[in-house]
Amino acid sequence: MPKISEKGATLQASAIRKLVPFADAAKERGIKIHHLNIGQPDIKTPTGALDVLRKANMEVVAYTPSNGNASYRKKLCEYYQRFNIKLDPKDIIITCGGSEALQIAFNVCLNEGEEVLVSEPYYANYNSFAKLSGAVIKTIPSSIDTGFALPPMEEFEKAITPKTRAIMVCNPNNPTGYLYTEQELRQLAEIVKKHDLFLFADEVYREFVYDGQKHFSVMEIEGIEENAILLDSVSKRYSACGAREGMIISQNKEVMASAMKMAQARLCPPYFGQIFAEAAIDTPESYFREVNDEYDRRRRALVKGINEIPGCKCPNPNGAFYTMIEMPIDDSDKFCQWLLTDFNLNGETVMLAPGTGFYADPEKGRKQARITYCLCIEDLMAGINCLKEALKVYPGRTL
Amino acid sequence: MPKISEKGATLQASAIRKLVPFADAAKERGIKIHHLNIGQPDIKTPTGALDVLRKANMEVVAYTPSNGNASYRKKLCEYYQRFNIKLDPKDIIITCGGSEALQIAFNVCLNEGEEVLVSEPYYANYNSFAKLSGAVIKTIPSSIDTGFALPPMEEFEKAITPKTRAIMVCNPNNPTGYLYTEQELRQLAEIVKKHDLFLFADEVYREFVYDGQKHFSVMEIEGIEENAILLDSVSKRYSACGAREGMIISQNKEVMASAMKMAQARLCPPYFGQIFAEAAIDTPESYFREVNDEYDRRRRALVKGINEIPGCKCPNPNGAFYTMIEMPIDDSDKFCQWLLTDFNLNGETVMLAPGTGFYADPEKGRKQARITYCLCIEDLMAGINCLKEALKVYPGRTL
Repeated sequence: MPKISEKGATLQASAIRKLVPFADAAKERGIKIHHLNIGQPDIKTPTGALDVLRKANMEVVAYTPSNGNASYRKKLCEYYQRFNIKLDPKDIIITCGGSEALQIAFNVCLNEGEEVLVSEPYYANYNSFAKLSGAVIKTIPSSIDTGFALPPMEEFEKAITPKTRAIMVCNPNNPTGYLYTEQELRQLAEIVKKHDLFLFADEVYREFVYDGQKHFSVMEIEGIEENAILLDSVSKRYSACGAREGMIISQNKEVMASAMKMAQARLCPPYFGQIFAEAAIDTPESYFREVNDEYDRRRRALVKGINEIPGCKCPNPNGAFYTMIEMPIDDSDKFCQWLLTDFNLNGETVMLAPGTGFYADPEKGRKQARITYCLCIEDLMAGINCLKEALKVYPGRTL
Repeated sequence: MPKISEKGATLQASAIRKLVPFADAAKERGIKIHHLNIGQPDIKTPTGALDVLRKANMEVVAYTPSNGNASYRKKLCEYYQRFNIKLDPKDIIITCGGSEALQIAFNVCLNEGEEVLVSEPYYANYNSFAKLSGAVIKTIPSSIDTGFALPPMEEFEKAITPKTRAIMVCNPNNPTGYLYTEQELRQLAEIVKKHDLFLFADEVYREFVYDGQKHFSVMEIEGIEENAILLDSVSKRYSACGAREGMIISQNKEVMASAMKMAQARLCPPYFGQIFAEAAIDTPESYFREVNDEYDRRRRALVKGINEIPGCKCPNPNGAFYTMIEMPIDDSDKFCQWLLTDFNLNGETVMLAPGTGFYADPEKGRKQARITYCLCIEDLMAGINCLKEALKVYPGRTL
């Protein structure tokens, strides 16, 4: 039997994926699981954009241009203009989700063995794409005590080596929900300019900010046009994770020329999703207001609910729909598995994403878990209640 | 300015892509171009499947499972059964087009510096995916004189080194249109078994075979279940290149487990396209009969038309909708460019894909071009007529 490749053999299933068989078994036993582990919103996709897709003339579902339909890229410029991001359609390549944008960016920018600095906890899938491109994620710790704010610049300076090629920032952050300030991002900009690094910015949660805050994009910073690469997606914006419409955006012409060759090799981004996503740019402001109000209610309920559990700590995240919490437990992998295998409260339990999966060194996440608030408030509260009761009886509790 | 990666810098635009600016300039001068260079059919997408998509309940366009919807994979097994290919849904991972299937297969199976043997001429995009996975395409020449039949097994045996990890076959072939026989494929199967290699089979043109021939799949061969990896797509089958619905298929559990981790990292394949593609499996047989009759008419007209041009040679391809032709010229790159820059016949010209792009050593394709017959017969004949007249006056003609 022929052997698979080394990179194929060493790819890790995420900490969440490892729990799936236990969740399936729990469901088979009739347990109802509150899924606070996933980033799949229950929010409705805008009907206007779906109607445009339904009514579109689709006589031949042909290849679109490799960088996406010109009309869509033009309209995207209008969309970004609303956020004070000035772009030309040629700065944009449409991709199959933010995932492909990430894959292309890593392949274009990173050589074998080169390093990308990320503040941790961080989105675990960055690892897989780094591995496939031959590069390495190197982490700089952020702390729950500061709400996972950007680590001090000295930490970045200390971590930079001749192998460092890029810094990556996810803003608002998955998994922490932290919204980076303009000042923090300008500090990062100084560092990437000084050390001639790329700045990858994953801003797919741009729309989801709370408490009257405003999102600031790295694309608004003058002087880092050659460094900044924006990775974006319509998945969360329009609750359309399945549409697989992302984009890689940069004013660095060399980057975009190389990205275009990769885009040409895989021919084109999805046709149906582009029709939908182009139309979705006309989604009325009221949709976002309603969605944000709903997320905000959930967020407040979550923060309050978690902080009321003895020994639990939850920061007050200003963006996205995640937060990392701390719990009085021995080991989040064991605890999250135990919730599925050994616990139920009147036939219900809760599924969390173990904190270990969001750290290069799993030890740092042993007491943490990521909770999403993309489910309706009833499910969210029921899940939190399960967590509260579970922590009273979990054998590995430390309180 | 930060530097892009070595692999990013060395990716080549294909020979066709290099012609695009010249084609654009010709169009600006008012020249009508007959595009015999592209694989975008003008055949209509089945309306039944599009109607199912239009009417689908799409309240939340959610992530689908990373390996694709279970109902779709189950129905695909029925589809393959029609071709005597017996599969289980777990042998299938749905991908974003055949391109992603190829990317995943290469990453799962190939280590840095390892080789994939391909008979040439071959589909140029294999190069980009090989390069991104760190692997290398190594070619074994096939000849226009045998209609580009599979090279003798001795040539494969000679080319196999300790670095060889796989053999790749595209059947029916793009760019040659050659349909491999059961006997040829069984020979390949013997070799991959003997040397413990993977056998990648790109069978996206399965439906398009002529002259009463029948497609034979490597998946029908017993004893190579651990070696065979099928790369497939609905792009050509339903004239739905934009749907981006492909699949990677294998009974090798280790390959599929690793492929699944890559699939999970990029979250899921396109949602809209899956609804369409699942419904498309019910496309009536009459659709394929009509489409095949249409392609067959075009094919006959093309072969006859090219062979009537003095000094031109065109084999009689039995599958797909391409053929490689030989012309009495000095250099296909120059000629194909000249067709766009210096030639027109009453305001019309023809665009061909230079043969150089389909060979590891461009020299071997200097007198060749790939012609597609996925355009209607009037455009096809007008294009051939342009070619005939152009060859009478091209300064680099050798006849």
